[in-house]
Amino acid sequence: MKLKTFTLPDSITLDSGGTLNGVVVAYHTFGRLNKSKSNVILICHPLTADSNAKQWWKNMVGSELPIDTNRYYVVCANVLGGCKGSTGPMSNHPDTKQPYLLDFPVVTIPDMVRCQQRLMDHLGVDTIKCVIGGSLGGMQALEWVAQAPDRVRSCVPIASCLKTSPTVIAFDSVGRQSILEHLKYGRGESGLKVARQLGHITYLSDQALEKKFARRLQYQNKFQYTMTPEFQVENYLAYQGEKFIERFNLYSYLTITKAVSYFDMVAYYGSIRRCFEASSATFLVMGISSDWLYTPSQSKHIAFELMTLNKAVSYVEIDSDYGHDTFLIDSDQTKQAISAFLEQ
Amino acid sequence: MKLKTFTLPDSITLDSGGTLNGVVVAYHTFGRLNKSKSNVILICHPLTADSNAKQWWKNMVGSELPIDTNRYYVVCANVLGGCKGSTGPMSNHPDTKQPYLLDFPVVTIPDMVRCQQRLMDHLGVDTIKCVIGGSLGGMQALEWVAQAPDRVRSCVPIASCLKTSPTVIAFDSVGRQSILEHLKYGRGESGLKVARQLGHITYLSDQALEKKFARRLQYQNKFQYTMTPEFQVENYLAYQGEKFIERFNLYSYLTITKAVSYFDMVAYYGSIRRCFEASSATFLVMGISSDWLYTPSQSKHIAFELMTLNKAVSYVEIDSDYGHDTFLIDSDQTKQAISAFLEQ
Repeated sequence: MKLKTFTLPDSITLDSGGTLNGVVVAYHTFGRLNKSKSNVILICHPLTADSNAKQWWKNMVGSELPIDTNRYYVVCANVLGGCKGSTGPMSNHPDTKQPYLLDFPVVTIPDMVRCQQRLMDHLGVDTIKCVIGGSLGGMQALEWVAQAPDRVRSCVPIASCLKTSPTVIAFDSVGRQSILEHLKYGRGESGLKVARQLGHITYLSDQALEKKFARRLQYQNKFQYTMTPEFQVENYLAYQGEKFIERFNLYSYLTITKAVSYFDMVAYYGSIRRCFEASSATFLVMGISSDWLYTPSQSKHIAFELMTLNKAVSYVEIDSDYGHDTFLIDSDQTKQAISAFLEQ
Repeated sequence: MKLKTFTLPDSITLDSGGTLNGVVVAYHTFGRLNKSKSNVILICHPLTADSNAKQWWKNMVGSELPIDTNRYYVVCANVLGGCKGSTGPMSNHPDTKQPYLLDFPVVTIPDMVRCQQRLMDHLGVDTIKCVIGGSLGGMQALEWVAQAPDRVRSCVPIASCLKTSPTVIAFDSVGRQSILEHLKYGRGESGLKVARQLGHITYLSDQALEKKFARRLQYQNKFQYTMTPEFQVENYLAYQGEKFIERFNLYSYLTITKAVSYFDMVAYYGSIRRCFEASSATFLVMGISSDWLYTPSQSKHIAFELMTLNKAVSYVEIDSDYGHDTFLIDSDQTKQAISAFLEQ
């Protein structure tokens, strides 16, 4: 239940062509590996989460929950480039012994999965019963299948895609511009606050904002006629921004969002067939009805392509008006679908 | 065809309680006022446009176009708080003789319309054949009907709403935070660039970004593995940001977006009935199918409420995959609907 770390014995060659030595992978495990080593569930975390999946996915991971820690050996690793224990921009550069910061190499989602593969070797795990994740986690889950077809028996990408859409690239790019502009004056955190506020809007639906906040004012029932935030939604976002800079590193935000923008499995492997032909995994692809960032049509596209390749694939669309972040909140539909799929 | 200015003879009392003296309204007129003064079309401009409607709405305003300058006397005024000739944050404070900047009072959309009413008085116009506008322009058009029911014979709000949604409030608020954070270091323009990039994404649809850019790279067909923008969509947004700071003032951006966030006709007038009961205007309400910022359902809501009040109202939904900015581009559907409505 504690954060563990594993240092890769060999250097890793990145998609960018660079190499990293002594890469540390921070991870959590929950439950026990059974004798046949057949009960491994690997959770891949989304953008700003960490390896403590029981904490950020608390309705999904735990005793008698869909990802049942009494039955499964659950592993979750902080992504390469992250700021939650794994090697990232705040790690020391081996030459200068100072944090890399902007000198940290640009990494890709395949790079992240390569590190997780080494972790699985280290844990003595050959085959993963299920690799599962939402958003960036779903991209990693799909990449796992492509990169290590022999190791993955099933895969659950939630609110994810085969390639990052220009809309996601655009929003993430604006977030990075905000950070990079502020970095010029040594105040990158101010830029990260803005990036987080922006990101947060995109994780929620129009209806969710309407339900949660409508046009309610924060303090008084009267306009203040100042430039200070006064609508509840503004104060909520400002609070999210403030909270975020305490728990997340701006250089990791740059690094991970850049990795997301590069994600395009078909371009990377040359064709959809080459991504998945060697796999005999079963798939549960999940979309969220009100997700306008990683739209249901992107998830349906994953399912369609897999079906075309004669893979065993189910598509479930979570009926929710909450938006992209639905996969992180308590939802009976999400839980039932994942429970049932893992029982198969 | 040239920018003209008119200085209000009296001071104006703002919704905030403050007053402004010597308010200048910058405006354009196109065509000629007929003898019966019955051919006036007032165009209300959206957020970042100006009074030169023939320029920014070039497919709509001009000889033999739907807003036909051979037949109609077309007026368009820069909004109060703007930076295109009307009094705004860059105007000199009467006491200090220095630009107001952040000391410019927060104004509202009713305040903007009050100034336009004085302009109409000045032009000798009692009755407006049609007040028309998209987005912020649509809000002004609706406010015109509520504020001066005897002066408006018809009204065309396009991609607009009766009250600004929390989604719009949220995006605009993040844009303002970006500007205000940068202003702390005297580099507000950097914040405006980010705000504009963000705004620009929201004015386009997912499909528009997919069609226009997909995942194409700007310079080479290979990832650069740097933090520099490299996707075409990123470069496009960066370019939009750079261009924007040359033509728009950040304090006006703060002022006008704040006015947008306050807009809520029902709250302002007490009930929907009180907004429109004194009006005998006819309405053409237009929504845009792919507009996720000012959604078709918001436009349909305007039409529904007007219908409930027994007003003569038509609703037309422009079938377009371009998003909010559809109303600014050449669209046969938009042109036909507006032409036909003005013929009535």
